[in-house]
Amino acid sequence: MTHAQPISRYPVPDPGAWPDDIRARILEVQQKAGFVPNVFLALAHRPDEFRAFFAYHDALMLKEGGLTKGEREMIVVATSAANHCLYCVVAHGAILRIYEKQPLVADQLAVNYLKADLTPRQKAMLDFALKVCRESDRVDAEDFAALHAHGFDDEDIWDIAAITAFFGLSNRMANVISMRPNDEFYLMGRVPKT
Amino acid sequence: MTHAQPISRYPVPDPGAWPDDIRARILEVQQKAGFVPNVFLALAHRPDEFRAFFAYHDALMLKEGGLTKGEREMIVVATSAANHCLYCVVAHGAILRIYEKQPLVADQLAVNYLKADLTPRQKAMLDFALKVCRESDRVDAEDFAALHAHGFDDEDIWDIAAITAFFGLSNRMANVISMRPNDEFYLMGRVPKT
Amino acid sequence: MTHAQPISRYPVPDPGAWPDDIRARILEVQQKAGFVPNVFLALAHRPDEFRAFFAYHDALMLKEGGLTKGEREMIVVATSAANHCLYCVVAHGAILRIYEKQPLVADQLAVNYLKADLTPRQKAMLDFALKVCRESDRVDAEDFAALHAHGFDDEDIWDIAAITAFFGLSNRMANVISMRPNDEFYLMGRVPKT
Amino acid sequence: MTHAQPISRYPVPDPGAWPDDIRARILEVQQKAGFVPNVFLALAHRPDEFRAFFAYHDALMLKEGGLTKGEREMIVVATSAANHCLYCVVAHGAILRIYEKQPLVADQLAVNYLKADLTPRQKAMLDFALKVCRESDRVDAEDFAALHAHGFDDEDIWDIAAITAFFGLSNRMANVISMRPNDEFYLMGRVPKT
Amino acid sequence: MTHAQPISRYPVPDPGAWPDDIRARILEVQQKAGFVPNVFLALAHRPDEFRAFFAYHDALMLKEGGLTKGEREMIVVATSAANHCLYCVVAHGAILRIYEKQPLVADQLAVNYLKADLTPRQKAMLDFALKVCRESDRVDAEDFAALHAHGFDDEDIWDIAAITAFFGLSNRMANVISMRPNDEFYLMGRVPKT
Amino acid sequence: MTHAQPISRYPVPDPGAWPDDIRARILEVQQKAGFVPNVFLALAHRPDEFRAFFAYHDALMLKEGGLTKGEREMIVVATSAANHCLYCVVAHGAILRIYEKQPLVADQLAVNYLKADLTPRQKAMLDFALKVCRESDRVDAEDFAALHAHGFDDEDIWDIAAITAFFGLSNRMANVISMRPNDEFYLMGRVPKT
Repeated sequence: MTHAQPISRYPVPDPGAWPDDIRARILEVQQKAGFVPNVFLALAHRPDEFRAFFAYHDALMLKEGGLTKGEREMIVVATSAANHCLYCVVAHGAILRIYEKQPLVADQLAVNYLKADLTPRQKAMLDFALKVCRESDRVDAEDFAALHAHGFDDEDIWDIAAITAFFGLSNRMANVISMRPNDEFYLMGRVPKT
Repeated sequence: MTHAQPISRYPVPDPGAWPDDIRARILEVQQKAGFVPNVFLALAHRPDEFRAFFAYHDALMLKEGGLTKGEREMIVVATSAANHCLYCVVAHGAILRIYEKQPLVADQLAVNYLKADLTPRQKAMLDFALKVCRESDRVDAEDFAALHAHGFDDEDIWDIAAITAFFGLSNRMANVISMRPNDEFYLMGRVPKT
Repeated sequence: MTHAQPISRYPVPDPGAWPDDIRARILEVQQKAGFVPNVFLALAHRPDEFRAFFAYHDALMLKEGGLTKGEREMIVVATSAANHCLYCVVAHGAILRIYEKQPLVADQLAVNYLKADLTPRQKAMLDFALKVCRESDRVDAEDFAALHAHGFDDEDIWDIAAITAFFGLSNRMANVISMRPNDEFYLMGRVPKT
Repeated sequence: MTHAQPISRYPVPDPGAWPDDIRARILEVQQKAGFVPNVFLALAHRPDEFRAFFAYHDALMLKEGGLTKGEREMIVVATSAANHCLYCVVAHGAILRIYEKQPLVADQLAVNYLKADLTPRQKAMLDFALKVCRESDRVDAEDFAALHAHGFDDEDIWDIAAITAFFGLSNRMANVISMRPNDEFYLMGRVPKT
Repeated sequence: MTHAQPISRYPVPDPGAWPDDIRARILEVQQKAGFVPNVFLALAHRPDEFRAFFAYHDALMLKEGGLTKGEREMIVVATSAANHCLYCVVAHGAILRIYEKQPLVADQLAVNYLKADLTPRQKAMLDFALKVCRESDRVDAEDFAALHAHGFDDEDIWDIAAITAFFGLSNRMANVISMRPNDEFYLMGRVPKT
Repeated sequence: MTHAQPISRYPVPDPGAWPDDIRARILEVQQKAGFVPNVFLALAHRPDEFRAFFAYHDALMLKEGGLTKGEREMIVVATSAANHCLYCVVAHGAILRIYEKQPLVADQLAVNYLKADLTPRQKAMLDFALKVCRESDRVDAEDFAALHAHGFDDEDIWDIAAITAFFGLSNRMANVISMRPNDEFYLMGRVPKT
């Protein structure tokens, strides 16, 4: 049984102690997802960082743009796998399966994006994301040209880089505090809803 | 739709062309699993290698010994993840879920075994397996002592090393021939049988 | 002459186009520093990300806590050097010199923190920061114990990790957009004010 | 004097305890080579693995095909050097010298195949073998095209990959059990027979 | 205060103990620079090595040739940064600022030469120097061709390689003996002489 | 046939063009060894560097001290193998066999020093040499303590570091100029003189 495992090395504040705006955010996600993803509970330990974290998240993941929501989640899963972040691979793998209505691609990306069922454009997107993840100091004009050739414009490239960079932050925090993914995520999006 | 994807870069022989012993083996696994794992079909391209491969597999995975069958599969999943082998992570992740009757551990091992729900003994086993996988040239008496301290004897250590080494072979072949895991594996062992 | 170099691969919005809150923030820093650090100009291209970025920054860098302001900047310089981020090494090196009233330590940290004029406690802090920077997936209880032995408590450890993680984000964005440090930073804090 | 060194960390079974088929194989190699290579003695500790190991070996190394026997040994020496496996570099270096009637190439491959006396075709073969050895997850269609350009067909490519993968297994086992090369190998093929 | 720090883990010989030729060399540099760079004091511990070291240095750094003196120092700073050698980055960074009459380039090279204010020819020079520094075994004819395309001839290429190789020696010695840069170097060349 | 291979990418000066001191040195080694090692011919292309190189070499390799001549050659072979330098592994492997009157140890060191027939003291010496070779920036007081525990004093440690650093220079030059070892080296010291 895994339920008894702590969700963070750090104290998780009692719901009674949540500031109002944080409570509102948590209730909103609970209503939508049916449960509260542990990242909300774990980061509530630091309200100011909680607010900045989700403001950044929303600025990158909820905006309009040249990347579909599924493609943004592909970036999250592939780079989080490179950073060996259990929370983000499992939680965003679930979201990816739901957005793409495709039950296999998240597990494929978690192991080796070169073997995943992707378009060449999506592979190019992940080539770049992984370069930003691992050796951003070597990004240069050739990388931009390679993405332009697949139809990405400079704003899309910013988005790919920023999503990678933001989840690199998230991965490091989750790894350090040993943030545990909710059990619910593992099965989400694998079987058709009935 | 993923069904149309080839299961190997190489030709997959027609069942009519299978030698008798290979046909027998394939029919046996099909009866047991309900489908034919693609590794049997892909390796049938080379009958002599097929025979040696499965003889080696059986010598390591079906024998009695100090490691449970679930623990052997843990080694396969963790080292195959280190080698980024999609086939082995997905197929043996399924087998691991079934052996351990535990739906989460395979996905955990695929991302970061240090965050998986394991005993300290199992973590020590995987510390060693990953050292054999990545830098076997640095294995020394201290590694043996660390495993002895967890109750593994020298024969168990041979088993850990040999399973790691054998699946290192398997990972490399699967990566080179782009062996595709059967879709069935992704869901196996995730939901209780009804 | 370096002044003619662009400060970002991306367009830098005209001051007339800045939203009011962003304008206020930029004017405030200009008044304090005597010039506008390029990170403010470059990130103004994306107002929502600008707001989240500086909210996160302030939550980590301006708060009270067990780390001095100088120590926080040490973390920034050492991890930004590991990520080869020119902007952050140069800009935060300047801030570090000023906070510590020590003209050498920033250059030392930029090359090899093990040779810098630090206390053993500060070296332990940077050992951990660099582990979070490079292989956060391997952080474990032993790392926490090593920091406790130097008097850091768990909240200090969160701070070290979060500063590292946040500037990992910043480093990746600066590298991708080729953010150029202001010339002013290079000399700041090197010579006593007269 | 080195003769007193053990040939394996593990017990080497007494000849009286060898199963008949293993005894026959050992006597056959002894007759041919004039001594028993230690790999036969060390693996006899596990008869089923012994049988599978040599069946696999023979399927790859004794078959007809587009690679000469010397070229197969080049793959073994170069990849075993990358894995720092003393047994395989020394034993297969000897066999390579004999097959190629060339006393220098084995030592060259053990240090740096790019400086060895090879044809461009052989260099391309080893480029690929070392990619399979080190990062098989990144093998893609371009690697196949590069080998086709040198006249290798897909079956040759399977052979290169499979020899690399099989000796990767062998290297890991030899490293873990500290398998010692017979002293005889070091000098074999270096001086013309008289 | 940093002045009290030792300049080497090893004893620094008393000036009275210096052999005459070493004394002459030290007095000469003191007269020119206004202080004695610590490398002279630290290496005086081994007079024969001191003599060979500076003979080698002079043969590479004082000769005529296709590389300007500033370009030679760029090689030193960029490769010493890759080797994390505090002494050489700080001391040769100062010399570079003076030769180039450019206060920023040394700090840029110390962090990421790809973001430094260099010509394409200088970037190609440093691409090669860093390859020699990190993986000289992979240098091949293509590297020579890339440099020829920028107007370097084979003698220039030898110079780039030899400077890299010599300072690789210097970096390793400075790191092992913890050679401390003189405080004077940090500020040299940053402000116009008055 | 390998004799026709060039010994360097660079021109090898005609003996008539050798300066007198270089000629004398070459004749001396020829008399002693029976042939002229190619390093003398290749470096004669740059007389000043030739002189500094051999002065440095002699200062480290011919002096008295706590390391035997055989042990110094062990350092050369092990670190040159790590740098994949064919010339130095082959040439100094030969010298090592002769000094140690031991035909196997050079080949062992070229593949994996942890499997070589060495004393624990010699293994500690090579642990340190390889750290200096690969990551000298991480050398610290613990490394000195580990060597002291094996009876090395600080001057011996300087010697180990300096030999490693000097041959790191030599390895890089040999790799860049593709310096070819004389065929004679491969067999030297393998068979007892008669």
